[in-house]
Amino acid sequence: MLGRMNLILIEPGEIREDGTVVFSGRRRDHLVEVLRASPGERLRVGIVNGPLGRAEVIEASQRRVVLRIDADGETLPRPELDLILALPRPIALRRVLTQAAIMGVGRLFLINAARVEQGYFNASLLQPEQYEPVLRHGLEQAADTRVPEVRIVPRFREFEREVLPGIVDDCRVGLLAHPEAAAGLAGVVRSPIAGRVALAIGPEGGWQDYEIEALQDRGLQPFSIGPRILRVDTAVTALLAMIELLRQLRGQHMTGRPDRL
Amino acid sequence: MLGRMNLILIEPGEIREDGTVVFSGRRRDHLVEVLRASPGERLRVGIVNGPLGRAEVIEASQRRVVLRIDADGETLPRPELDLILALPRPIALRRVLTQAAIMGVGRLFLINAARVEQGYFNASLLQPEQYEPVLRHGLEQAADTRVPEVRIVPRFREFEREVLPGIVDDCRVGLLAHPEAAAGLAGVVRSPIAGRVALAIGPEGGWQDYEIEALQDRGLQPFSIGPRILRVDTAVTALLAMIELLRQLRGQHMTGRPDRL
Repeated sequence: MLGRMNLILIEPGEIREDGTVVFSGRRRDHLVEVLRASPGERLRVGIVNGPLGRAEVIEASQRRVVLRIDADGETLPRPELDLILALPRPIALRRVLTQAAIMGVGRLFLINAARVEQGYFNASLLQPEQYEPVLRHGLEQAADTRVPEVRIVPRFREFEREVLPGIVDDCRVGLLAHPEAAAGLAGVVRSPIAGRVALAIGPEGGWQDYEIEALQDRGLQPFSIGPRILRVDTAVTALLAMIELLRQLRGQHMTGRPDRL
Repeated sequence: MLGRMNLILIEPGEIREDGTVVFSGRRRDHLVEVLRASPGERLRVGIVNGPLGRAEVIEASQRRVVLRIDADGETLPRPELDLILALPRPIALRRVLTQAAIMGVGRLFLINAARVEQGYFNASLLQPEQYEPVLRHGLEQAADTRVPEVRIVPRFREFEREVLPGIVDDCRVGLLAHPEAAAGLAGVVRSPIAGRVALAIGPEGGWQDYEIEALQDRGLQPFSIGPRILRVDTAVTALLAMIELLRQLRGQHMTGRPDRL
């Protein structure tokens, strides 16, 4: 339940030949000033897109932190969730990136739609050097090592024709949040979810009819998220939580054939 | 999917004898500058803890907005969810209040626990004139009229002995988020949820053993929210979404007797 670094993420290339890493920036600050790490202490670490492990604090000073890394834990699987998102305004995108990393997303597709303001595609947050730290911060909080792969597709037709078919092929279930859909998630996913899920969430003003049709034709199934109107980052968290619960219910409470959309 | 005012909340006492209201502050600013309301336009409104309705814009100027109210819609039921929360730090509390209002909470109990810093109970945000606007802003975004009732209980023992029994009596299901619990939500709620639910979420460092025991003895059932570590506001959103989904599944996918904890 923490809003802090519950796992220290380390790039594979940061580990020196003697198995130590040296921090001097943000991670030093957090370790010394928030976590009050002291020599001899053992901390939870993870290698980016690699195994979990432990680290022993060798030095913790005003200048730097030195850790000896023992990354012999399990490598977490990539989350089986592809999130397709009509690009939101930058302030909302930052919150979405954080929530996606916290909740667990394998691939994040930021796409265009008629009701997306085109200027959003010029946001500096769409540069990897800007969004990667936001994602890592979310992972450090959630204690995960798997960085969501981000792909930006500024043309809806290109996404729909060239990218979406591959996503749908990879997924067992394809879902499309749409305020006007008749059924809720429980009515659309008629059986426990196993395997990869694709989830698409529209722009502030909603999808246009031709977008709904195109996404539906490619295999995404519209569902309503209910009468409450959710901010996009709230919708991401709520829907990923619901999908996670539908996975947990597998074979336990629900009956029926596995969906293949 | 909006981060804006999707419903204009009006206090019953604000409506004048001729059925109009006059806004000059935040709501005027939002209506004129964000929604660009103009005379003749009709807007969605709701009376605080009362019915939904429509309003016609009579005047929209730099100085004020005048609306004629027609609040003859349905009155939404109070959300059947009591949230019990170990008081978080003020910055997290603000986010929790927003998410609770967006997702729908009937009563919010902010309680003490061993790992709650006692200074948090002096936060100015615990004054109704501070937290009420935060809740209303969330409701305006979610398009709901039901303001969560907030009760602050600065002594754990008082909460557990004098308040919790009444909550549990009102609820069909009582749940306690606890990182060390063996089962997830799907394993604890063995049947579809119908009726009122109580959900307790602990402090940053977790509940202490005697707190878990006391809450469990009073009828709250521990469950794990999984391996990812969630910030408290993320946990509120994710768990309320999961509970909402468990309600939707009622009679549709699940079998078994209704739980009475």
